[in-house]
Amino acid sequence: MRAAVLREGALLEATLPDPTPGPGQVLARSLACGICGSDLHALRHLDRLAEAAAAQGGGEALDPARDLVLGHEFCAELVDFGPGTERRLRPGTRVCSMPVAGDARGFATVGYSNRYPGGFGELLVLTEALCLPVPEALETGVAALTEPLAVGIHAVAKAGLEGGEVPLVVGCGPVGLAVVAALRLRGVAPVVAADLSPRRRELAAALGAEVVVDPGEESSFAAWQRTAGSARAVVFECVGVPGMIERVMEEAPRDARLVVAGVCMEPDRIRPLTGIAKELELRFVVGYAPEEFAAALAALAEGRVDGAPLLTGRVGLAKVAEAFGALEHPDAHAKVLVEPGRDGAWL
Amino acid sequence: MRAAVLREGALLEATLPDPTPGPGQVLARSLACGICGSDLHALRHLDRLAEAAAAQGGGEALDPARDLVLGHEFCAELVDFGPGTERRLRPGTRVCSMPVAGDARGFATVGYSNRYPGGFGELLVLTEALCLPVPEALETGVAALTEPLAVGIHAVAKAGLEGGEVPLVVGCGPVGLAVVAALRLRGVAPVVAADLSPRRRELAAALGAEVVVDPGEESSFAAWQRTAGSARAVVFECVGVPGMIERVMEEAPRDARLVVAGVCMEPDRIRPLTGIAKELELRFVVGYAPEEFAAALAALAEGRVDGAPLLTGRVGLAKVAEAFGALEHPDAHAKVLVEPGRDGAWL
Repeated sequence: MRAAVLREGALLEATLPDPTPGPGQVLARSLACGICGSDLHALRHLDRLAEAAAAQGGGEALDPARDLVLGHEFCAELVDFGPGTERRLRPGTRVCSMPVAGDARGFATVGYSNRYPGGFGELLVLTEALCLPVPEALETGVAALTEPLAVGIHAVAKAGLEGGEVPLVVGCGPVGLAVVAALRLRGVAPVVAADLSPRRRELAAALGAEVVVDPGEESSFAAWQRTAGSARAVVFECVGVPGMIERVMEEAPRDARLVVAGVCMEPDRIRPLTGIAKELELRFVVGYAPEEFAAALAALAEGRVDGAPLLTGRVGLAKVAEAFGALEHPDAHAKVLVEPGRDGAWL
Repeated sequence: MRAAVLREGALLEATLPDPTPGPGQVLARSLACGICGSDLHALRHLDRLAEAAAAQGGGEALDPARDLVLGHEFCAELVDFGPGTERRLRPGTRVCSMPVAGDARGFATVGYSNRYPGGFGELLVLTEALCLPVPEALETGVAALTEPLAVGIHAVAKAGLEGGEVPLVVGCGPVGLAVVAALRLRGVAPVVAADLSPRRRELAAALGAEVVVDPGEESSFAAWQRTAGSARAVVFECVGVPGMIERVMEEAPRDARLVVAGVCMEPDRIRPLTGIAKELELRFVVGYAPEEFAAALAALAEGRVDGAPLLTGRVGLAKVAEAFGALEHPDAHAKVLVEPGRDGAWL
């Protein structure tokens, strides 16, 4: 198959052997696959990602020296079945799936595994039991937003909102936008969201954030305070760069709960005294449960989350490296999809 | 009055003007006052403490250049009343009180204020409404444990135990021991507690920790795991030195809740990825509410917490500096009381 391969720190189009489905697995064709912030991290810091995967435990080791096909936010089409499969879905069915596959040797994340190439290649091996059919009316590209939306749904579930809190979403990249969408799905209002990028603020507003703040103009917490009055602050840190946790801790009001949803790969510095003096709470979150993944697909299919405006670019395999470059500029794009079946041009 | 004064970084006995009670305040004689870990911090890093007080906000500024009489864990005897007081307690009554006093100019912590000297001096000004009478049968020194026990009661309340968790108390200095006692007060069992010091482990066991671990011999978490099986970990970090939060994060099992009760004054380094990968939760806690303070006094008075074994030394004003020095060695002492009414000898 053709694939965009991460090899020796660079992304290049290459031909790889087709993957083969094992027991309980299916072969699928990648139709569209979103580029995630952690894919950008992987391109720059694959060693750290391998370390992170190891820290999470339970899975197969990722060998940064070997070829890797990224892409874990995919919508795919069923092609064939491995042995011992139930075959309830027919070939040609579009599916979304949690990016998890494995066998007796261990489990791995599809798209972060040397054994299970991700959606930036033409073919995927998926776990049959995890494949959810995509309703007919749902556009393939929007279906590919299932995975990132599930991240937001999970972060909001872990935030343990009890009513009466007013959330502040710090950073409106794909994670922050998914959190805004997930908050609105739950009927939480008002939602305050902050980002330096005008385009991202626009998207946050489109997804239902009532108050959008440009932290270059006004402190996010000042805007939050004006909206929230005496409500408790639940702050979603969705930036994930060193220094952000401490900055949010410094600015947060007393008793605030910080949900750390941005993935900061680097060691970071905090002042415990800041947390102690204000009795802050930090909840680190990652991933999602199967039911959260299914809820994300249903919300997109039923139009309860309008994903279309988030899709700001589509590229074929030849332009994947270029797309990664474009995503370094926060104002240029929200979600860029790789469509392995198209030619190289941008759409 | 005579007092142990913190002046230019040293503790020395000196004569200071008697403090005068203002409206709603009483004058009291300090009978016994415990030396707290944050008093040790104050001796070494008064600037940082002043900064911390400022960060907590709402109170009066502490001027490290001026004389300071430390001591906020006191049992005192009512001497006289300021204007506008209710005078429901008679002079001679022994009282414990939250160490908070103030007026229209602002509130301050008694013992961390240039205006309100603490219990390492002969006389205190306290807030009448906060004074709780000490039941007759309760020994004065044990009553002075009310404040540190309240810290443990508050930390345990903030931990939000729902049943089914097994707590691990990391560090059995006065804060950790108070947490052990507070857990047992709530009927939580088993309690696992870890400290390098044999004496502190003994005290933890005396207060009701079923499993005590020497982390020099075995990982605290391995011992915890053996006891807890599949229960959720709630870890009380009661050491409060740089690096401890990260170390506990590294060793904690998935989904653990870390209650940060040790006061680390220095900036600290964490790896957010460690928290993210295991979805850890950090709750920073400090202080207590008035009802928690009253509950601590009641628990000591009714013998539900046996405080006597924690009292490992008593000194007069002349030996306060020496007592601070002795407390630098974790195996030497648990709680040392300053008794301004005694001569200088150790007891």
